[in-house]
Amino acid sequence: MSDHREFYAGRRVLVTGGLGFIGSNLCRALAEVGAAVTAVDSLLPDYGGNLFNLAGYEDRVRINIADVRGHGMEYLVRGQDVLFNLAGQVSHLDSMQDPVTDLEINCTSQLKLLEAVRRGNPELKIVYAGTRQIYGRPLYLPVDERHLLQPVDVNGINKISGEFYHLVYHQVYGIRASSLRLTNTYGPRQLIKHNRQGFIGWFVRQAAFGEEILVFGDGRQKRDLNHVDDVVDAFLRAGAMDAADGQVFNLGDARPLSLLALVELLVEVAGGGRYRLVPFPPERARIDIGDFHADTGKARAVLGWEPRVPLRSGLADTIAYYRAHREHYL
Amino acid sequence: MSDHREFYAGRRVLVTGGLGFIGSNLCRALAEVGAAVTAVDSLLPDYGGNLFNLAGYEDRVRINIADVRGHGMEYLVRGQDVLFNLAGQVSHLDSMQDPVTDLEINCTSQLKLLEAVRRGNPELKIVYAGTRQIYGRPLYLPVDERHLLQPVDVNGINKISGEFYHLVYHQVYGIRASSLRLTNTYGPRQLIKHNRQGFIGWFVRQAAFGEEILVFGDGRQKRDLNHVDDVVDAFLRAGAMDAADGQVFNLGDARPLSLLALVELLVEVAGGGRYRLVPFPPERARIDIGDFHADTGKARAVLGWEPRVPLRSGLADTIAYYRAHREHYL
Repeated sequence: MSDHREFYAGRRVLVTGGLGFIGSNLCRALAEVGAAVTAVDSLLPDYGGNLFNLAGYEDRVRINIADVRGHGMEYLVRGQDVLFNLAGQVSHLDSMQDPVTDLEINCTSQLKLLEAVRRGNPELKIVYAGTRQIYGRPLYLPVDERHLLQPVDVNGINKISGEFYHLVYHQVYGIRASSLRLTNTYGPRQLIKHNRQGFIGWFVRQAAFGEEILVFGDGRQKRDLNHVDDVVDAFLRAGAMDAADGQVFNLGDARPLSLLALVELLVEVAGGGRYRLVPFPPERARIDIGDFHADTGKARAVLGWEPRVPLRSGLADTIAYYRAHREHYL
Repeated sequence: MSDHREFYAGRRVLVTGGLGFIGSNLCRALAEVGAAVTAVDSLLPDYGGNLFNLAGYEDRVRINIADVRGHGMEYLVRGQDVLFNLAGQVSHLDSMQDPVTDLEINCTSQLKLLEAVRRGNPELKIVYAGTRQIYGRPLYLPVDERHLLQPVDVNGINKISGEFYHLVYHQVYGIRASSLRLTNTYGPRQLIKHNRQGFIGWFVRQAAFGEEILVFGDGRQKRDLNHVDDVVDAFLRAGAMDAADGQVFNLGDARPLSLLALVELLVEVAGGGRYRLVPFPPERARIDIGDFHADTGKARAVLGWEPRVPLRSGLADTIAYYRAHREHYL
């Protein structure tokens, strides 16, 4: 067990969005290393929270159902050592259809949470789940943390605010906050019921269950992917290390692949299935960003983080997981 | 009269924040060129709205008291040709003391306004009042529009969102929106009652009325200033020109001066007065940005805009204005 995992033994850790995809995997990892974990989640329909995601951990993770937009966070942050702040509205499409709800969850709630921390627990260490979406269409590749922010949808804008609030509360009040800018994350416990939270969960689902995969455009858009175990490792590192405070870090992978290559790999790993190229639906074309992959040199240098899960085996394990637990995800 | 002023003859124009400093000067200019102007303002205490700012124009500018946070904007945007969107919370200090109010005014209201435009008047031309505050402490000078955004306070973050909402609504829905990133603006009709909306109005007031001017730090911080007439001219240009759509433009001046030099000029122009250097109060030191001046090459190239009011005569006229109308501003 490396140092950054040992740090959590006996620590009190709060995870917002703790029943979601990344949050639940993080809660499980934290429980494994001996943290006293509380998972906060609103279980809003279609957002990704799923009680089954903590199956088997009910005795080791305290589950607290609460909406970050309401009261209660003031109380919940007290006495905690670390906050992994993952609660959010993550659908780009939903943010265009209901921008005010996206704002309430991704901005207003974040600001109220930080105010609660400043007043009630200013020593709390916070790691925020940011997103590479804030860069928009890349001006150069790979995209480093100094790339211009040019969000293409309301969600991207509000995620910028959420991250900046953390950085300003660090700068002005000394709150020990940092942000990880996540790229496409895949793995067990993702929402795969609908396709409004990004392509990767949807592709995995279709491959796992033999549905025809529709690839928008020519399929040549390149993206980088991270397995959720690698993302969890990055959160654990940032939460344990003082050097993270006040910083933002790209996650990602230096080996992007085209959506077509990804789909072909998925079909191969799944042992069957099919795909078809179709034109971009207009509401997606307008917010598509083309090729993307992140420069993760800063996370490597400061956090010692590198993605370790090989794509092929990661996808194979993921497909096996959904096949084994289909009824909890479809 | 140049083309961009002629454009407004007979046009229906809405100005949010129309009783404020820049908004009222803009309303007056619009009335002069024959526009049918409606000024919307909430007259929130201490925000800058002042009925006297439209004195003499009551017959030529329709005044509609309304808070952009409430309902009513859906109705007010209908049938308008141009919206100058200047309503906002502008105090950096207030944004740290009451961040949620800043968010409601500068983000939530903007998003609701854009939704109202998209649904009720998608042909509306919009010019948004952005701010150079979003750049934070400059990494290089002069600061151009591609400078990294690194806001130092909650107001800066929320102003980024407000601007980005306009750009995304342009990109996704074709709303004809642009943004001017204003620097320190001075001139008649500014709020000079308190010093929470920036140094320039406060310095002008102290010079005009013989109060001792306190300069924080060593006074060597350099800033650029624009006279409000030049800022109004930029709004008129952006509102009249298709080339502005989807763009952001720095305003500013290529000849920054130190706060000390500014204060000495003010004392000279005012014909008396005094100043003193004092240490930065901590709540201001934390959000101070050091030297700043903007590269305005893009506004010059695309809008044909250049600041024209000489600083010395601009300050002299401004001081004369407040002395003549003291009771309406103190």
